[in-house]
Amino acid sequence: MNIEQLRADTPAVAQLIHFNNAGAALMPAPVIETMTRHIQLEASLGGYEAAGQQSAELENVYAAIGRLINAGADEIAVIENATRAWDMAFYSLPLQSGDVVLTSTTEYAGNYIPYLQLKQQRGIEIRVIPNDEHGQVSLSALKDMLADDRIALISLPVIATNGGPVQPIEQIGALARAAGVLFLLDACQGVGQMPIDVQKIGCHMLAATSRKYLRGPRGMGFLYVERSLCQSLEPAFLDLHAASLLTSDAYKIRADARRFENWECNVAAKLGLGAAVEYALAQGIEPMWQRIQQLASYMRQRLAQIPGVTVRDQGIEQSGIVTFTHRNSSAEQVQAFLAGQTKRINVSTSTLRSTLLDMQQRDLLEVNRASIHAYNTEAEIDTMITALRLLP
Amino acid sequence: MNIEQLRADTPAVAQLIHFNNAGAALMPAPVIETMTRHIQLEASLGGYEAAGQQSAELENVYAAIGRLINAGADEIAVIENATRAWDMAFYSLPLQSGDVVLTSTTEYAGNYIPYLQLKQQRGIEIRVIPNDEHGQVSLSALKDMLADDRIALISLPVIATNGGPVQPIEQIGALARAAGVLFLLDACQGVGQMPIDVQKIGCHMLAATSRKYLRGPRGMGFLYVERSLCQSLEPAFLDLHAASLLTSDAYKIRADARRFENWECNVAAKLGLGAAVEYALAQGIEPMWQRIQQLASYMRQRLAQIPGVTVRDQGIEQSGIVTFTHRNSSAEQVQAFLAGQTKRINVSTSTLRSTLLDMQQRDLLEVNRASIHAYNTEAEIDTMITALRLLP
Repeated sequence: MNIEQLRADTPAVAQLIHFNNAGAALMPAPVIETMTRHIQLEASLGGYEAAGQQSAELENVYAAIGRLINAGADEIAVIENATRAWDMAFYSLPLQSGDVVLTSTTEYAGNYIPYLQLKQQRGIEIRVIPNDEHGQVSLSALKDMLADDRIALISLPVIATNGGPVQPIEQIGALARAAGVLFLLDACQGVGQMPIDVQKIGCHMLAATSRKYLRGPRGMGFLYVERSLCQSLEPAFLDLHAASLLTSDAYKIRADARRFENWECNVAAKLGLGAAVEYALAQGIEPMWQRIQQLASYMRQRLAQIPGVTVRDQGIEQSGIVTFTHRNSSAEQVQAFLAGQTKRINVSTSTLRSTLLDMQQRDLLEVNRASIHAYNTEAEIDTMITALRLLP
Repeated sequence: MNIEQLRADTPAVAQLIHFNNAGAALMPAPVIETMTRHIQLEASLGGYEAAGQQSAELENVYAAIGRLINAGADEIAVIENATRAWDMAFYSLPLQSGDVVLTSTTEYAGNYIPYLQLKQQRGIEIRVIPNDEHGQVSLSALKDMLADDRIALISLPVIATNGGPVQPIEQIGALARAAGVLFLLDACQGVGQMPIDVQKIGCHMLAATSRKYLRGPRGMGFLYVERSLCQSLEPAFLDLHAASLLTSDAYKIRADARRFENWECNVAAKLGLGAAVEYALAQGIEPMWQRIQQLASYMRQRLAQIPGVTVRDQGIEQSGIVTFTHRNSSAEQVQAFLAGQTKRINVSTSTLRSTLLDMQQRDLLEVNRASIHAYNTEAEIDTMITALRLLP
């Protein structure tokens, strides 16, 4: 990996230390340039005319995402954000009274609320897969739970928003396939950080965002739906892009995964997502993943040496999301203290509100989250550690 | 109105003649600047950190939209685009078997498909309000149709995507209120072009886009939901912005219209929408509307003088969307011919596919659409007319 080039492509690293890559990473120059160039094209030519001129590049966004996750371009929908991508999958499932959704303790509250909504509206049941001794989904428990033929869906995040284990998604996928149960993977914190191969995972649907480890623009995401499943899922919302009106009494839904899209989108951001995916692929996901894990491991070691600081990460395999608490300072105080350093340090705060089940189980109200990307360095970690040591 | 300033704020008018404002208008300089500035801020500070710094400006987007349509900021949701804004209203309505939706012949096929979907899924009924002799919704017919207490919703566009009449929305709203029937207004072609006052209209919900007459960015829109209705409508999709997770078995939906939003958005585009609304308000909607109508009327007169050209607009009150057909050339040929002029002229094509009911009723397969904004001029119209006269 060419770290110098990575950093040269990310000019802000001269001014600040960005450890909020799990929130929104710093976009590399090609992404910024792609977006600003397209906005200028829209201003000089018109919005539709500009999109028309970029039609090949827009088509390539699907192919690039396909290469990133080992899917066909026809299995990809580019959607406003990961939330709505996930929604278009989840709310389109024909879940009925008595159907059971299995999830993990690490589930994001934003996904858990939709489970509860369908519990109230349709009478579905939610069951939480217990963790093993490492804090990850217990595969033996999952296997037992799958014996119940009311299980309709496994739905969980590969990595939680507040860190935690990298879930054993390939084993979960294999169990789902063996049981004939659908598997919806929330890959928001995985895509761009670690290798995500939908063929190896065996998930049926996968939702992801642009702005996190992929380093793409905000307000953009995508959904993967397996080809064989796609045509049997009627999207929860339809429009004139997802379907055509044949007569005053009949419409036809398109065959590919774009049935989950709608016609209008922020074209500049869509092209920016494409540029981000190309950029990630050019760096190589595997070497980035190795570097991210090494840096995160180094940060955890250094954090653990600071009196009053407790590292909160669990799991056999851990990601670039490092979480910790400080004995004497609230997470908000730590975040503000680091942001106030001469060279600003961006970390974030994750509370009970976002991952209720996990935080309650671990008796935590909040953690600080320092999320590392491949463009970060040991020297930046050292600077953060030095600063934290000065916190009373 | 200061036309010179309007044109100075729209540098592309030196290079082209843009009559595709009903598709996507040319963004004025303040919108471009707001977006590019924010993207640069994201690149230099981080996506979340940049949004945090712009929190007051983000809040002002709601207040500005409120001023534009005479609503409270708490009645506004800023949504990815008008399609999803409309969807969040329509699909959240508790429509049941036997409930009737009234719409107009001018309805957009992208809205009509959702009616058909709920007809299939839930057994609702669709009834199309007949037109009067001017081609607009017949108010007497509507009044008669509202006598049926199964009518649950009136849903139609103020102006069709293929032009046509400006519907008598205040009279429709008054009839809806008198009958106790909900009124969902698609104001995509209205907002930014003509005065839209939700108090005067009496609509309960209104969806609109950023990119058309408002001259804002693509991939952005908004939804108005009347305060008294808002809390009784459970959004079709929920997330951690629309609701909070209280316990593993209970969530609480927020009270204001942002319950129809989700947390993530393209912040640069949201700020761009705010800048577009402020810009439109500064110009004055009423004088823009007068100018647009005058220019459109002039274009219709000039078009009607060209042998082989037929103007296709109907209605007592007409908008800036001018539609026509050419005896010897397809709409696509006309569009390409105008785009190929020394000074490029952007018009668009509207087909049966987008407004099936209206086009079938008028026995049309396609029309050309030249949509005029206040920054256009008579001289630009003259140039288009001169070019069209050269078409064989």
